[in-house]
Amino acid sequence: MPHRDGRSRGADMSRRDGPPRMVRVLAPASVSNLGCGFDIFGLALERPGDEVVARAVEGSGIVSVSVSGDGGRVPTDPERNAAALAVQGVLDRTGSEAGVAIEVRKGIPLASGLGGSAASAVAGAVAADVLLGSGLDRTALLECAMIGERKGSGADHADNAAPSLAGGFVLVLPGLPPRMVMLPTPSDLVLAIVHPALEVETRRARTILGDTIPLKAGVEQWGNAAGLVAGLMRDDWDLIARCMRDAVAEPLRARLVPGFEGVRDRALAAGAVAAGLSGSGPTVFAICRTRDNAEAAALDMAGAFREEVGVESDIIVSSVNREGARILECS
Amino acid sequence: MPHRDGRSRGADMSRRDGPPRMVRVLAPASVSNLGCGFDIFGLALERPGDEVVARAVEGSGIVSVSVSGDGGRVPTDPERNAAALAVQGVLDRTGSEAGVAIEVRKGIPLASGLGGSAASAVAGAVAADVLLGSGLDRTALLECAMIGERKGSGADHADNAAPSLAGGFVLVLPGLPPRMVMLPTPSDLVLAIVHPALEVETRRARTILGDTIPLKAGVEQWGNAAGLVAGLMRDDWDLIARCMRDAVAEPLRARLVPGFEGVRDRALAAGAVAAGLSGSGPTVFAICRTRDNAEAAALDMAGAFREEVGVESDIIVSSVNREGARILECS
Repeated sequence: MPHRDGRSRGADMSRRDGPPRMVRVLAPASVSNLGCGFDIFGLALERPGDEVVARAVEGSGIVSVSVSGDGGRVPTDPERNAAALAVQGVLDRTGSEAGVAIEVRKGIPLASGLGGSAASAVAGAVAADVLLGSGLDRTALLECAMIGERKGSGADHADNAAPSLAGGFVLVLPGLPPRMVMLPTPSDLVLAIVHPALEVETRRARTILGDTIPLKAGVEQWGNAAGLVAGLMRDDWDLIARCMRDAVAEPLRARLVPGFEGVRDRALAAGAVAAGLSGSGPTVFAICRTRDNAEAAALDMAGAFREEVGVESDIIVSSVNREGARILECS
Repeated sequence: MPHRDGRSRGADMSRRDGPPRMVRVLAPASVSNLGCGFDIFGLALERPGDEVVARAVEGSGIVSVSVSGDGGRVPTDPERNAAALAVQGVLDRTGSEAGVAIEVRKGIPLASGLGGSAASAVAGAVAADVLLGSGLDRTALLECAMIGERKGSGADHADNAAPSLAGGFVLVLPGLPPRMVMLPTPSDLVLAIVHPALEVETRRARTILGDTIPLKAGVEQWGNAAGLVAGLMRDDWDLIARCMRDAVAEPLRARLVPGFEGVRDRALAAGAVAAGLSGSGPTVFAICRTRDNAEAAALDMAGAFREEVGVESDIIVSSVNREGARILECS
């Protein structure tokens, strides 16, 4: 996160001779929900991530949008592109009439449940902020990123954007303005991530939930959410394991991910502390206590997808990204 | 809490010449829910409390039950009395065939939302445990108390029994066996409690909730429950204030407590950090940062009940009880 003091690093750019002409920002993928935290918990990964390059160009507003690494599937229409919408959010917020050309380099697989729209939006917001020297604070940047993600995925919550922006394990309190509460994670926590060659459309994953939930499931969910926070803050692995369970979304969404239960069970059998759908899936995450364990769990999960559903998976083994979005280049 | 090492103080009684013949235990009132923690959060008060005297007598099982301080309204039938049911739970669990006479001294107003059934049950369980020297651990005692509370109020959750037993601010994880997670509270926290001359029947307060809740309210609730734990563990009063709100039960239960919204608003206007229904009401609690502030908030809340509804209220200003159930006498 380039804004530890609540100010943008764009302010530092005053040491340069004039404002930057080009800024390149990397924003990491993230696992949201994390069992019990539907729409409120997110955790940033070391990799993969999306990059956004923002360039100062002639004209006013968003002059061009290009996307690579997406197989041609991400819209380049500024009204529908998450990064462009976030950049526009920064322009609107600061009243800037600068011209900006945007290049999005997708590193996060599409529709994977790893927060790709959010990462593009975060990278766009941070890049624009630095390019314009606007010095927006973290909450403002998050709000701009949320504009981008909202149109990209229909989501009106920041459980992917917040960790992608700030790094670490983040609780996002519902309501406006969004408030991020940074939570510690055990230093030895490693994630095993398996992304099968399946796609789950985010909107469909949301409509399947309906508008109401059983009260009993709700009690379990807020008990577990509360317990997970205590577990994280105390490094209490038993408590983390007991609480990182989803009583609300996963039971319904599991049917959109063939083989999910078997894959999750395989992760637990391999020694993972907890496992579940990343966001709306189809990616499955497992929380592990060592890298060796995470590697074993990831292979076993991928094996289960292969045996049960006949699909191959990409595997990611990642520590927690504690930095969030990062400026890679500024010139 | 007389069981800090997980063993009953009954074990200490071996220093006596023979087992005790009489044990008197005080278990404190408690505020449950605390805004966002329906069925999972509870907080013990310094006062009032219920006492249970358990005596070893001729015969087997529960030989007699008497109750004072209740205006004749608490059942003395051992099958319906919370303390007696908890004592029976201890007898059953330990296989004891001892005879026990039970005397319940109610100090907590009935149907007030201050955990009276739970306190009687806890006091009964602890008294029986010490009388019999059975040395049950905390979880076992809680389970015995829950038997008592379940029949007394229809409740199948330990959000009052747990703090009454263990003291402090307790998160009770749903599921069996119940797991208590002790949470810290800011040392300066003082509660203002106002118990109006109204009654809310616990069962009615539960049926009004129905079986389902809006998903949106659920997200708010588990976000706030998670945030409240972080706020308590960090002594972050701003976070506590933002999160100690009930999106689920209070909006529905408020209609059972005439004047509630005005009373709550008066507490906040008087400087309370948060305020809400204690359990199912009609008692209203307010969390304050100083005793002076709590006294002012309590008077203002009682004034609001008087002005808006024409009822008088009992006022309690209490710090957090950090000890839980306490053995007052053992001979």
